[in-house]
Amino acid sequence: MAGLNDGTSTAQRREISSATADTLRLAMLPGIGPRTLSLLLECFGDPASVLAAPDHQLASVHGVGPKVIQSIRSADDLVDVRSIVNWCARERVDIVCDDHESYPRLLADLPDAPPILFVHGDAVAEDEIAVAIVGTRHATTYGLKQAEHLAYSLARAGVTVISGMARGIDAAAHEGAMAGGGRTIAVLGSGHGEIYPSEHEGLSKAIAAHGAVISEYPPYAKPRAGMFPQRNRIIAGLSLATLVIEAPDRSGALITARIAMEQNREVLAVPGPVTSRASRGCNQLIRDGAKLVQTVDDILEELGPMRAPVQTTDGSEIRNVAELQLNELERKVLDAIESESTPIDRVIETCELPAQRVIAIISVLEMRRLIRRLSGQYVSRI
Amino acid sequence: MAGLNDGTSTAQRREISSATADTLRLAMLPGIGPRTLSLLLECFGDPASVLAAPDHQLASVHGVGPKVIQSIRSADDLVDVRSIVNWCARERVDIVCDDHESYPRLLADLPDAPPILFVHGDAVAEDEIAVAIVGTRHATTYGLKQAEHLAYSLARAGVTVISGMARGIDAAAHEGAMAGGGRTIAVLGSGHGEIYPSEHEGLSKAIAAHGAVISEYPPYAKPRAGMFPQRNRIIAGLSLATLVIEAPDRSGALITARIAMEQNREVLAVPGPVTSRASRGCNQLIRDGAKLVQTVDDILEELGPMRAPVQTTDGSEIRNVAELQLNELERKVLDAIESESTPIDRVIETCELPAQRVIAIISVLEMRRLIRRLSGQYVSRI
Repeated sequence: MAGLNDGTSTAQRREISSATADTLRLAMLPGIGPRTLSLLLECFGDPASVLAAPDHQLASVHGVGPKVIQSIRSADDLVDVRSIVNWCARERVDIVCDDHESYPRLLADLPDAPPILFVHGDAVAEDEIAVAIVGTRHATTYGLKQAEHLAYSLARAGVTVISGMARGIDAAAHEGAMAGGGRTIAVLGSGHGEIYPSEHEGLSKAIAAHGAVISEYPPYAKPRAGMFPQRNRIIAGLSLATLVIEAPDRSGALITARIAMEQNREVLAVPGPVTSRASRGCNQLIRDGAKLVQTVDDILEELGPMRAPVQTTDGSEIRNVAELQLNELERKVLDAIESESTPIDRVIETCELPAQRVIAIISVLEMRRLIRRLSGQYVSRI
Repeated sequence: MAGLNDGTSTAQRREISSATADTLRLAMLPGIGPRTLSLLLECFGDPASVLAAPDHQLASVHGVGPKVIQSIRSADDLVDVRSIVNWCARERVDIVCDDHESYPRLLADLPDAPPILFVHGDAVAEDEIAVAIVGTRHATTYGLKQAEHLAYSLARAGVTVISGMARGIDAAAHEGAMAGGGRTIAVLGSGHGEIYPSEHEGLSKAIAAHGAVISEYPPYAKPRAGMFPQRNRIIAGLSLATLVIEAPDRSGALITARIAMEQNREVLAVPGPVTSRASRGCNQLIRDGAKLVQTVDDILEELGPMRAPVQTTDGSEIRNVAELQLNELERKVLDAIESESTPIDRVIETCELPAQRVIAIISVLEMRRLIRRLSGQYVSRI
């Protein structure tokens, strides 16, 4: 997965292909959601063929009625592709289709993955090691401090922090991650030209410089109430786990938690006093099975193995989030152990460390479920 | 199970039988725990036979060595049964053997149940519907308020509150239960003549008047550190569930929680801010599977069906703790439903309520898992 901001390729991407133009035309059409579009593409092969298909063939697709057909027929009038592309080029926003190598792999797993993302900033391979931090706009000092502190600690551990750039918990999470010198991604519930709340325009720029600001909506899309729950599926979908910090009953953060569960991602929550309304949703989530989080280690322990190894910018390969907690020597020993049965003697030789030391570290790695002991003399990666 | 304080029978019990005297002699002997005593009784039949058994037969029992045999031989010198009995008679403390009908049934289930209890106050049948509330001596205002409030609400619902009469959470729980007009039982880690802490002597008298103060130790036994974990098994053992309100790492309350788990009783905990040391143990318990409690309903829901029906003083029979949450009409409908298949028409007839109303209440009872619907027309108790 390449970075989105590497000079020439970015410029090329801003000069979009006709396939991307057609995807854009379809994805931005009112009345066509990601699921319907995905069915249409499955049926007709590519965006151009969808746009060219006769009415009766379109009508045979599940969920496609006269209104959608009317939309598709008027696509050229309804979606001004040229103006979107120009706006994005001017504002340095990349247009990323779901078949592009920089499209987030975790997000692509979803049945309702957005066909197009508008990305301001960089998306990098390590962003696959990500945790969403969400919560109420009306946070208490306790919640704000926890959001900032846990985001800071996740960032220090090398985990990207995803959130929604709302007031309260969201903003504190983004700020904590940046203070920790790490990466953070904001997912908007509006277009890039309609940052909401408007006082977060400065925050938006800072986030783009320390990660990315992402939207599935065209630049001019104004924020509407219905778009935020939609947006929440992307926040959860970009993340291995969703952590709720403070949420009263019926908070939007609880919708994100429910979506994360439906996506088979981990749901975590910070407990709070039962006397605090702002903690009621979190306590309820924990009661219903969400993992209780007291420290950053509680989060890292829950993340476990990656679906596929992630190449980090420093050249190492992360297979399991627990690796982020390792110190230098532990990392060295782990690197000397292969997926296949590896003799402990060879590990000692490779590491050039005292045998006793290596054996102690092997026990630590075993406890963290990064390796398994095959017999007294052999170990392998899990 | 009869009350302990009903006139003549109490006076009779204070004039203890020779069997009780022998049990007392053995149970109070240093070096013999409840498990060893139970093995000795299993082997020799009754306390008198244990005291009369020759050394080599005693030595054949698991856990009985020369020291225990020496103790048994010197029982008359080591245990002054007469003075214990006189003290108890003077201070109105009952001596209850584990084969007596007033010995708590839940406690009798334990493999290490105390063979003798010293009881000041009443033990009644309803005390079988009991919840232990435990926590740190160094509680915060939040913890004290929660202990008092939840104990108050449990007492209002008809649940007896068990605790250890220590400073902090324990005292607040006893006081909350009494304020709620309900019953409460304190289990001492010392003898009745050595109330600890001494400033709780007044509290002890109040508890005896609203329930009971219980000890397995002879009146003159001074509190020693090792006796409190021992005592905790009785707190957990008298209770359907143990609720931890506030407990730092390594708190005694966590020992009680662990014992409750080992006894297959429910463990519940009140969450708190992750920034509060006093809540750390509770949050950890919840993380490890204890049920999170926000309100008294969270507790009542966990208690479920009783091992055997309990007769309450007002003559009704409780089979499931969820019955305590019922209003008058719900109770009426439940009483009209039998353990065997009962036609709904007959329930309507018995209750003399509008059919529509009865059917709605049947749904409520079903939801609370007190009855099951066998078909459209029949229901039965669970």
